[in-house]
Amino acid sequence: MAQKYYKSIIFFFFSLLIMHTLALDVKKPCKRFVVHFHDILYDGTNAENATSAASANATNLGNFNYGKLVVFNDPVTKDQHLLSPPVARAQGFYFYNMKAEFNAWFAYTLIFNSTEHKGTINIMGADLIAEKTRDFSVVGGTGDFFMTRGIVTIRGEAIQGFAYFRLEMDVKLYECY
Amino acid sequence: MAQKYYKSIIFFFFSLLIMHTLALDVKKPCKRFVVHFHDILYDGTNAENATSAASANATNLGNFNYGKLVVFNDPVTKDQHLLSPPVARAQGFYFYNMKAEFNAWFAYTLIFNSTEHKGTINIMGADLIAEKTRDFSVVGGTGDFFMTRGIVTIRGEAIQGFAYFRLEMDVKLYECY
Amino acid sequence: MAQKYYKSIIFFFFSLLIMHTLALDVKKPCKRFVVHFHDILYDGTNAENATSAASANATNLGNFNYGKLVVFNDPVTKDQHLLSPPVARAQGFYFYNMKAEFNAWFAYTLIFNSTEHKGTINIMGADLIAEKTRDFSVVGGTGDFFMTRGIVTIRGEAIQGFAYFRLEMDVKLYECY
Repeated sequence: MAQKYYKSIIFFFFSLLIMHTLALDVKKPCKRFVVHFHDILYDGTNAENATSAASANATNLGNFNYGKLVVFNDPVTKDQHLLSPPVARAQGFYFYNMKAEFNAWFAYTLIFNSTEHKGTINIMGADLIAEKTRDFSVVGGTGDFFMTRGIVTIRGEAIQGFAYFRLEMDVKLYECY
Repeated sequence: MAQKYYKSIIFFFFSLLIMHTLALDVKKPCKRFVVHFHDILYDGTNAENATSAASANATNLGNFNYGKLVVFNDPVTKDQHLLSPPVARAQGFYFYNMKAEFNAWFAYTLIFNSTEHKGTINIMGADLIAEKTRDFSVVGGTGDFFMTRGIVTIRGEAIQGFAYFRLEMDVKLYECY
Repeated sequence: MAQKYYKSIIFFFFSLLIMHTLALDVKKPCKRFVVHFHDILYDGTNAENATSAASANATNLGNFNYGKLVVFNDPVTKDQHLLSPPVARAQGFYFYNMKAEFNAWFAYTLIFNSTEHKGTINIMGADLIAEKTRDFSVVGGTGDFFMTRGIVTIRGEAIQGFAYFRLEMDVKLYECY
């Protein structure tokens, strides 16, 4: 009889373990890293340094670049220095979409091609610039990041007019295979 | 002996329960709501009311706005009235992509910032305007909609030339955490 | 006593089976197919045949179409022949985003509407043209492809200047419902 209870208890905890694995995995990142994204916008004269350029110019709706669409291939570094060796490239686009303040929307791919990581992470979301931090979605990944999902928390770190900005990207992956 | 059968049966149903939880969860939404999306396109004179503007104009390929790319920050309401207090904003873009009829493609973020919900839902898909309803994919979420996935079923509700259109969005989330 | 061992062993393997189902499903596609994507760019004179057109023209940053954004509604075939009956349409956009070589970024929807398949697959990713093959993410699906996720491996098959290109798309779905 005691043995039967014992077995039932094992069974119960084993079942809990399975459900735990499934449910809680998604609340704690299975992988997390912070990187810095540098954008140098092409102004017609800085072709050497520029990492992004406007495909479509701003409309005259408001004074905050409404409709300006920028295509980028930006370096991503581990520390905050623009000239540090990039650990990844960020390729994608953003556009401004608010009449009364600066606000943007992003979709892009982080591309890793080093001895440490090979693969890509695909990301999209609203860049609510007025918020101190805002969250994008990691919607997929390839290579070392096969099928990953998660959240990227964005924080503006530096801005120099329209010439340069730097974003901190706190990448939290909750599905890793 | 009877007890052993009894235990086996419990075990069997418990196992079914686990598999059921995993497999069927995705067939019945864990969260569902219907909202209405209002788009007022900027025509050069309606800056006060406009909620969207064309970043790129139509090409001359066909007569259905092929290539026109519109960036929006649109109000989303619980009922069909444009002037109802918005429950969310929809920020993103769409473009027209068919020569012989109106047809579009969307990617956008629903942004909730109320006492009821805080967070975002990221969506993309083909807007097959000729179909009575069509489905977009919910590809991710943040905040209250952390890591969500699902389907948004779209239905055109009203259209006034190029000035205004309203879409019903039936948001069905199948992964909630 | 023997029976108890027997039951424990069944239990053990059954548990393994559950975990196996959950963990390994994602390493072997539940569905896989190869299709071919044909893009005929509008040049102002080929309206009859064109399947894509530039919404935004290239900037003068570099000589590789930086910033050119193309909107498409392209036929997708089972074999390599442009004129084979399409099994799907691919609707979406791509843009070029590199100064020193051809490189692009895609987001699009595969639309199936045949007796075999009805539904859509949503895809995005970086098209690293210099690589022999590159991977996009399948970020969602609808209809027969309800909630699917996976990888699309892309390979350039043919290119005729700016007039035509063909890509092989090896679609591997790892989540099927």
